[in-house]
Formats: sequence, structure tokens, C-alpha cells
Amino acid sequence: MTDIKLNQDERIDQLYSKDVKIIQSNHVFSFSLDAVLLADFVKVSKQKAKKALDLCSGNGAISLFISDKFPGEIDAVEIQDRLADMAKRSVKLNQLENKIHVYTEDLNQAPNFLKPDSYDIVTCNPPYFKSLPQSQKNPNPYLAIARHEIKVNLHQVIAISSKMLKMGGKFYLVHRPDRIDEIIAEMKNLRLAPKRIQLIYPKKDADANMILVEAIKDGRPGGIKFLSPIITYDESQEYSIKVKEMLYGK
Amino acid sequence: MTDIKLNQDERIDQLYSKDVKIIQSNHVFSFSLDAVLLADFVKVSKQKAKKALDLCSGNGAISLFISDKFPGEIDAVEIQDRLADMAKRSVKLNQLENKIHVYTEDLNQAPNFLKPDSYDIVTCNPPYFKSLPQSQKNPNPYLAIARHEIKVNLHQVIAISSKMLKMGGKFYLVHRPDRIDEIIAEMKNLRLAPKRIQLIYPKKDADANMILVEAIKDGRPGGIKFLSPIITYDESQEYSIKVKEMLYGK
Repeated sequence: MTDIKLNQDERIDQLYSKDVKIIQSNHVFSFSLDAVLLADFVKVSKQKAKKALDLCSGNGAISLFISDKFPGEIDAVEIQDRLADMAKRSVKLNQLENKIHVYTEDLNQAPNFLKPDSYDIVTCNPPYFKSLPQSQKNPNPYLAIARHEIKVNLHQVIAISSKMLKMGGKFYLVHRPDRIDEIIAEMKNLRLAPKRIQLIYPKKDADANMILVEAIKDGRPGGIKFLSPIITYDESQEYSIKVKEMLYGK
Repeated sequence: MTDIKLNQDERIDQLYSKDVKIIQSNHVFSFSLDAVLLADFVKVSKQKAKKALDLCSGNGAISLFISDKFPGEIDAVEIQDRLADMAKRSVKLNQLENKIHVYTEDLNQAPNFLKPDSYDIVTCNPPYFKSLPQSQKNPNPYLAIARHEIKVNLHQVIAISSKMLKMGGKFYLVHRPDRIDEIIAEMKNLRLAPKRIQLIYPKKDADANMILVEAIKDGRPGGIKFLSPIITYDESQEYSIKVKEMLYGK
């Protein structure tokens, strides 16, 4: 661990449930519950699965969090230098250099430097918000790019994910429920059949604030399952049991 | 009440929360929780709303259940004679002849005997299951038609609902969650923008078994809300508090 340098604003956090260490920075990027939920939602059914791809990988949270259950290698693509650099150092910190490969690239170029139609799974925690002229963005450019569709939009995310997956491969997306109509329409147009959906509600009596979607490339349309809802906080404002388990283990 | 005749297989049930009486028959049709949930989901925001339309109205459950909160008149369309006849007698039983009008007609003909582009709200609890050659149908033709898309399919239901609504009018649908992709695609093609969705889960840890959708004719796409989930049965296998309130009142 002596060769891992931390920048001034960085710290090392730990996801206890996974025994994973991750370099974070409030100024640049730190993973949120969304990444933990998406990683937990990923189902690796094939023990011979060889290749996973994580798009919009940020500081590498999802690649790191699925590394214990995914048997093959994981490619992570992140456009922002500083974030990709954090991801690379976190990979080293966890001695996963042989398993996780971080690319500092625009995901739209992925078919040019990675092999299309070859991935068993693709995961993505993309920017959630449209980048409209009138939309208020974070003045911090790192956070603005992570949250708003400045460098990539929903259509591109779904198009590239579909292109990179092999037939029968699975796409895992976390997003905002208010865009479910677009998500479903784009998937339909891009050879992805949604199969499992899970909604996350901040509290028992609140509207959902996140949605997890699993889709199969060239899967038969229909037969979508809505898994039991996840409630983030219980009535005493603490994380619910389900979420505690994801964060701290059983 | 002396002029209301009951057939041999019929009984009168009561929805206590609404103080509504309804003629039911196990052999022909009896309303289920789906109708109660849809009626509860209907939001009447305009106190000047004049016209509601209930398609696939069966024995009139939804018309009867929304009659206390909808200020205007309600047209109900049901293709099956026996069911429409039950609905007509239930309307009399509740002395709502001036408010609810039952038509024994194919809903596809609705634009020919009712006024298109004129309804404030349209509700529908349609047959849920595709009528495929291999699908097992109830040998009882009344129930088969109520459950399978024999006389009408999802596309037709959504097309006619949209046609009958005025601009800005609201469509309320209860269906199976496994068809959400079709529901959203059909709505998008037929000038309906989904706005509120609510999922019903039979138990806390089970997949959803019903979905409620509110859509606005010519509404702006996007901004869909997933309302807090409804759990039908609590851990002691009794109806949850929310459902009890819908059935028996607060």
C-alpha cells in the first residue's frame, strides 16, 4: 500500500460489506448509495461469465463492488482523468490490477478500443439530469459532468451498452424513475428487453427516487418483473435493514 | 329496492368504505381488489369535472366506487350483456340512475355512440392476459372474456381511451406489471403521457402483481412519479392498513 499516493483532498473509504477500499474526494467524486444498490442488483448467474464492462465508472465504485461476485475480468470506462486516476489507484489498493482495467476514455469510443458484442454484463450509473440551457448545474465541473448529461446522454449510454453486450448479455442501469418512459423506449429501439425492475423509495410513504433496471440483449419482450421495493430509511430515519446489509454486511 | 331482481347465482355485496352496494356473482363476475385500488387511485382535481367514462366496466364496480368523489356523470361501457345488466341493477340499487349510465356495447364502438374528445377522465380495468392460441382460458366464457384479450386488446383499450378523453384529460389504468413496456409504448404512440405510477405488491418481499398508471392526454412527456408502494397483505397475512382503509373506511 505504500505506493498509493493520495491527493490532498482525497481519503480512503471502506465498503465494509465487501471489504473494499476506495479512494474518494468530496471535491471530485465520491460514490453514493446508487452505486451500492446497482452493484447489489447485478446478478451473476453464469459462473463462466468472462467479461464485464462498467460505463461512467467514476472512481470505480461499481467495478470494485461487483469484483467479489463476478468471476471474470472487468473493464471500466471513465471520461474524467481525475476520476479514472482515483479508480486506478483504488484498484491497486485492493490488489485487483489483474481483474479490473480502467480506461480514461469517452464511452462513445468504447467500440473502437474494446470488443463489441463480447460482454456478459454491462453496468452503468450515468448522469441523471438532462443538460438543458436552463438547467442549474454544479459549478464544480467534476460533479457537473457526473450529474448532468454534458458528455453523454441516456440514448448514447443505452446504445453503447447494447453494442458492447453479447447476445443474451445483461445490462444493469441505475437511474431516476421519472425517466422510465425514455429508458424503456430507448431499450426497445436498441435490442434490449427489460426483465427486472426495482424501485427505491427514500421512505415508506415517499415517491421513488431511484430505479434499477436489468435488460437482456435480444431478449424476448414482455414478462417484466418488479422486485420487492427497497426503502432506504426506516421510520427512525436510520438505514433500513436491507440497505444496512448492503453497506455493512449481514 | 323492491324492484331490483336478483338472479339465482347473484348476491349483493357492500363496499363499506364507500357505502356502495353491488350485485355480484361468482359464476359471472365479481369485482376484485383491482377495481378498489383503481378507484382509490383516481384523483379528481377539478371540481367542475363533468364527464367520466369507465371502459370494460364489468358489473359497474369502478363507476360505483368513484361516484362519491366524481362530481359529474359517469358513462360505463361493458360488452357482456349479463355483466352490464348487473351493473344497471346495481346503479338502481344505489339510486344513481341520474349519475351513472351503463351501455351494453363493444368499447371499440364508443366513439360512435359517445362523444370523443369530451371526457375529463377515463378509467379501465381491462382483461390482463393475451389471448394466444396456447393460453389456457377459463372454461366459463364470462370470466374468460373478462380476463383474456378475446374481445379487446391493450392497444384498443388505450387507443379508445385516448380518443374519448379531452386534451388534458386523465386516463386511469390497472394492469399487470409484466406488460409495462407495452403500456408505456402504446401510450406514447397514442398521445398519452404517463404521470403517476403505483405498484401493488402482494407481500413485502414479493414481486409486484398489479400496476396503476395515470396518464394525461397530450401531457408533456417525462416527470413520471412512482408513488409509495402498496403492500396488500401484512406479515400476519391480513390486509395491510392501506388496503383495509380502502375496503372498510378509515
